[in-house]
Amino acid sequence: MENKKMNLLLFSGDYDKALASLIIANAAREMEIEVTIFCAFWGLLLLRDPGKASQEDKSLYEQAFSSLTPREAEELPLSKMNLGGIGKKMLLEMMKEEKAPKLSDLLSGARKKEVNFYACQLSVEIMGFKKEELFPEVQIMDVKEYLKNALESDLQLFI
Amino acid sequence: MENKKMNLLLFSGDYDKALASLIIANAAREMEIEVTIFCAFWGLLLLRDPGKASQEDKSLYEQAFSSLTPREAEELPLSKMNLGGIGKKMLLEMMKEEKAPKLSDLLSGARKKEVNFYACQLSVEIMGFKKEELFPEVQIMDVKEYLKNALESDLQLFI
Amino acid sequence: MENKKMNLLLFSGDYDKALASLIIANAAREMEIEVTIFCAFWGLLLLRDPGKASQEDKSLYEQAFSSLTPREAEELPLSKMNLGGIGKKMLLEMMKEEKAPKLSDLLSGARKKEVNFYACQLSVEIMGFKKEELFPEVQIMDVKEYLKNALESDLQLFI
Repeated sequence: MENKKMNLLLFSGDYDKALASLIIANAAREMEIEVTIFCAFWGLLLLRDPGKASQEDKSLYEQAFSSLTPREAEELPLSKMNLGGIGKKMLLEMMKEEKAPKLSDLLSGARKKEVNFYACQLSVEIMGFKKEELFPEVQIMDVKEYLKNALESDLQLFI
Repeated sequence: MENKKMNLLLFSGDYDKALASLIIANAAREMEIEVTIFCAFWGLLLLRDPGKASQEDKSLYEQAFSSLTPREAEELPLSKMNLGGIGKKMLLEMMKEEKAPKLSDLLSGARKKEVNFYACQLSVEIMGFKKEELFPEVQIMDVKEYLKNALESDLQLFI
Repeated sequence: MENKKMNLLLFSGDYDKALASLIIANAAREMEIEVTIFCAFWGLLLLRDPGKASQEDKSLYEQAFSSLTPREAEELPLSKMNLGGIGKKMLLEMMKEEKAPKLSDLLSGARKKEVNFYACQLSVEIMGFKKEELFPEVQIMDVKEYLKNALESDLQLFI
């Protein structure tokens, strides 16, 4: 599977969908597949570097958005049966029983395995995030560059 | 990127996902990529021509469905944090601050740039929409034609 | 379209998205396309064999999860406008008016047409499902096998 490329467009900011993305991404890296994850819209929340949140140079709306949305991977809600956090807690317990890694572990793994994380430029601008608020290795990418990358890939998913 | 083809299956009727689809579609057209958007299920709502809604020849269920669902692109709700419209209003303000086009502008742009919009035949039949209620250039396409088109494309996404 | 392959990753446990998957899968089989559906996370619920549910050898969390989630295809909720079941009932009536098959019929059809259904190994382990609780022909597949299959396919969608 060397020389193969996978491109994921992570649109979702849900815990379970981010989990799926990173499980696929990590498995692909272990098979030596080159992996790009283009985080757009809610998917951008996965890339927030905990503790680097800043309200500087933000409009009131951007400040509100920054405060109201999850500040790091583990805070993301479930897409279904979240039930104010109870459903998610239940899922996390079930994962622990199986010794399955949680989202933040999978994220660290993906970063170590050199998954290429990109933040969608337009999303960054609209949501008002600064590059400094995201993980240091994250690059900003526009939609056309995304399309070029996706077209050069062997497997593309919208998650 | 000439001679490349992209096929999007737009299943979602959410404002933010439709936004993502059309941003990708417009960027692709600017790169001379041929773009097909097959609107199925809730995605069909994007294709309703405002002011062309009609209750003629519809069953009671179809009439109710037609009245209860968004009548045009700008009425679509957010997939997350819609909060009865407050979240969406906040997003629209944030988009305005960045001078980012809203959904209806992107839709006009895509139509001018000759994105090929298709309505899923089965969805049209079940929801009871008439061809006259959709934008005039929209063609009806069945699932097998969708599959043929998708298989001939270089990039396919389910949104 | 012979010798063509399609790979669907069904992540969703929503009635409407499962409907879309199976409509596409059945149409593809009629065109002699080889079809694989890899059911992960909520998508696993589609594969539960009604009447085969068992609480044996399950942790308390797994027992709760097994009881709280839909036991068969027809019990899945809509992704939108479910309205405690009213929206879904309305959709089912609209489908009946058009003599469109419901989800359980499409599922039977797909099984007869030899769509290859796989259950994601990690999801099965975390949710605590036993192989015996799923349809007998369902095979367990890990993420790497999924990736291999997807990379060998001509069309891949994440639903």
